[in-house]
Amino acid sequence: MRLARPLENLIDRLQKLPGIGPKTAQRLALFILKMPLDEARQLAQAIVAAREKVFPCSHCGFLTDEDPCIICRDTARDRTMLCMVADSSDIIALEKSGYHGQYYALNRNFNLMDDIDLGDINLKPLNQLLAQGNIKEVILAFNPDMDGEVLSRYLAATLNRQGIKVTRLAHGLPVGGDIEFADEITLRMAIEGRKECI
Amino acid sequence: MRLARPLENLIDRLQKLPGIGPKTAQRLALFILKMPLDEARQLAQAIVAAREKVFPCSHCGFLTDEDPCIICRDTARDRTMLCMVADSSDIIALEKSGYHGQYYALNRNFNLMDDIDLGDINLKPLNQLLAQGNIKEVILAFNPDMDGEVLSRYLAATLNRQGIKVTRLAHGLPVGGDIEFADEITLRMAIEGRKECI
Repeated sequence: MRLARPLENLIDRLQKLPGIGPKTAQRLALFILKMPLDEARQLAQAIVAAREKVFPCSHCGFLTDEDPCIICRDTARDRTMLCMVADSSDIIALEKSGYHGQYYALNRNFNLMDDIDLGDINLKPLNQLLAQGNIKEVILAFNPDMDGEVLSRYLAATLNRQGIKVTRLAHGLPVGGDIEFADEITLRMAIEGRKECI
Repeated sequence: MRLARPLENLIDRLQKLPGIGPKTAQRLALFILKMPLDEARQLAQAIVAAREKVFPCSHCGFLTDEDPCIICRDTARDRTMLCMVADSSDIIALEKSGYHGQYYALNRNFNLMDDIDLGDINLKPLNQLLAQGNIKEVILAFNPDMDGEVLSRYLAATLNRQGIKVTRLAHGLPVGGDIEFADEITLRMAIEGRKECI
């Protein structure tokens, strides 16, 4: 059956969002039809405002509506530590871990299959940060997969050449995880990275 | 941590949608930030347009942007059958079943706990439809729960008094369902409503 055109259009648009299938899109669209008009308008405005006003911080690449961002403006931060991430959304997760240093987001997708030349990565803003001489350690925090692995090795080599200490996030069992269901590579890394009980 | 205000606002608004928790809202908001500006604007416009332009058909209550709706305008429909539903979104599901009669959506939530007087249900548009004399059968298609049960009995009594044949959807095992996991009331109804194999 053909639904009313504006309803069909809304369902189509919602389906383009990640994890939203046809059924969920229909349910969301029908809910929006029943929202007070004001709220529907505010939702629409929030979408446009977020898209128009939020941009990557010129220092660290984090999502912000003021430049530099709230993290770069924070004078209480540890300026000797720099954590490198692939995407600025990774910073949101790392912030919850209690890490209190600086960040640097590459804000690019790295996919080995895409035949990307790693030499093309724009490291200028990073080098400017490093040139200030405060940073004692760079932590590489890329996803624990093949792409992250290649990226980490490339960056570690580049930064080591500049005489900077480079570390990376530990691999091992996730907290709350189950040894029985852990994959063999994770288990091997957990054994390799074992710690002495003292 | 505090995210950029427009981003936080968007996450808050998205969380008000049904089935969207904090994590999904964040994922959707970050996706929207990476959308081309045009697409983000079109999504926002689709929300406002759907909310502003779609309304219930004055004849049957179905969601439409033209009055009467596409179902009421369809001359090939069986005018002797009328299917009553609680919500116009139920019509979308029933249309897929192959039913080809008319509809009538009450477009009201009925919750026995809310102490609703069933006599308050506005049946005027329905009575106008019935007064035309074409309708031979009214099918009650309310959710198979207590609220639907009470509503069905009330409407069946009201319509029977007017000499109209009233039927309701069959209860029983859903297709693809599993007898082992069917609840006892569904099973009892499936036994009561058993059909002769011929």
